[in-house]
Amino acid sequence: MKNTGVCSCVQEIAKSFVNLNIDQPQSEIYQTSLMSALIDGVYDGNMTIAELLEHGDFGLGTFNDLDGELVAFDSEVHQLREDGSARVAAMDQKTPFAVMTHFRPTISGQLTTTLEKIDVQDLIDRMVGSPNLFCAFRIDGRFERVETRTVPRQTKPYRPMLQAIENQPVFTFENSSGTLVGFRCPPYVQGINVAGFHVHYITDDRKGGGHVLDYRLLEGKLELAKISKLRIDLPHTESFQQATLHSEEMNAAIEAAEG
Amino acid sequence: MKNTGVCSCVQEIAKSFVNLNIDQPQSEIYQTSLMSALIDGVYDGNMTIAELLEHGDFGLGTFNDLDGELVAFDSEVHQLREDGSARVAAMDQKTPFAVMTHFRPTISGQLTTTLEKIDVQDLIDRMVGSPNLFCAFRIDGRFERVETRTVPRQTKPYRPMLQAIENQPVFTFENSSGTLVGFRCPPYVQGINVAGFHVHYITDDRKGGGHVLDYRLLEGKLELAKISKLRIDLPHTESFQQATLHSEEMNAAIEAAEG
Repeated sequence: MKNTGVCSCVQEIAKSFVNLNIDQPQSEIYQTSLMSALIDGVYDGNMTIAELLEHGDFGLGTFNDLDGELVAFDSEVHQLREDGSARVAAMDQKTPFAVMTHFRPTISGQLTTTLEKIDVQDLIDRMVGSPNLFCAFRIDGRFERVETRTVPRQTKPYRPMLQAIENQPVFTFENSSGTLVGFRCPPYVQGINVAGFHVHYITDDRKGGGHVLDYRLLEGKLELAKISKLRIDLPHTESFQQATLHSEEMNAAIEAAEG
Repeated sequence: MKNTGVCSCVQEIAKSFVNLNIDQPQSEIYQTSLMSALIDGVYDGNMTIAELLEHGDFGLGTFNDLDGELVAFDSEVHQLREDGSARVAAMDQKTPFAVMTHFRPTISGQLTTTLEKIDVQDLIDRMVGSPNLFCAFRIDGRFERVETRTVPRQTKPYRPMLQAIENQPVFTFENSSGTLVGFRCPPYVQGINVAGFHVHYITDDRKGGGHVLDYRLLEGKLELAKISKLRIDLPHTESFQQATLHSEEMNAAIEAAEG
């Protein structure tokens, strides 16, 4: 079922990938707060960007007040805002939810064929080899098209995320070169994190990007790290303690918000 | 609803508890593998007791082959087996699932009234103050009655846990002095860990105990630590990678196995 529509070339591409010899301990996935808290409207965290970078050089998330998408790599954190602007985040900005890792790819390969998002996801699933493990991945590439959205800054009293993003701006980047920063998480962390793929994009000129909805890759380099460690820090805020984090509607809401 | 049947004394007891001044960083909850993996029959882990103790001096779990209940405190790990025997675990024994913490209680108090399990749980819920946080707790006390069960050692091919524990022995300790070692986890970690209360018991003579089903406390001391950090290490085993960790039946199975 998973293979419906996937390019038959994926199996061949997978064979061309190489395992990198990493002589370092495996990285962990670090996250501050929970996806479910963000969905419930917990848009203020205590963690600064400087503190976040202690837990990884690579990752994604958002900023306090839900003020745009966060994308981080090579220890630089970018903020992609609803007006389409992008900037390097200041060290004293704060995040209510972010997922980071010290990115040490264990598998790497070139992508030389045009691939849909579903093809790339299938390729990554094959590389990881088990739905029960985590994976961080990076693609530096040339894209025929990347569709992104950017969460709009909220003011108090905060509305839950599904309401907050009702009118979120969607951007389409055509013939764009840039970087995808993503995680693939196991189904069992839905709510805690995002089950499946969660990917942010930034253009090479660092002037645009956002939360990725879809893309078509022309060529690029894929690097990925299989990860079997997860660390979660919960915020020490009243709003987190009072949030509704577990409900039957939560999974559907996360799929709607992050799909 | 939660208060149905709870002793009205709990509110008064709660007032008598004191916050301890802890000058150390907050501990984390550390777990190796997932409750859902254990439910699915992943009974072999790579982690030794010696390695486990690096992540905490206090906790609970089981041993490879599901060979009895693990209860740890004061950096000593005990194994409570299905024949009713108990022993200090060897450092080279291994565990497929365990939850540990460096136990640094932040709240402490005396229990001088007879309390049912539901009263103690209500008291702990009040102390923690939010369903969204974790808590580790220890009760050294005298019990009118403690009911425990002990998982029976399995041989390969392993059966899923619900089948494995169909004929598990249940023990009742009457007029018993001993120690309860427990965690209270938020609802959103069901499957990853056990949502709600998960408690093991060992008698003062260290000769009996197990996974706690019910108890009636006569008097004792309760110490608890509010915790907002969780760290998960997934096993590097083929059986873990191939396990079914996420299904609609999983939550019901965990409630049946750990309730």
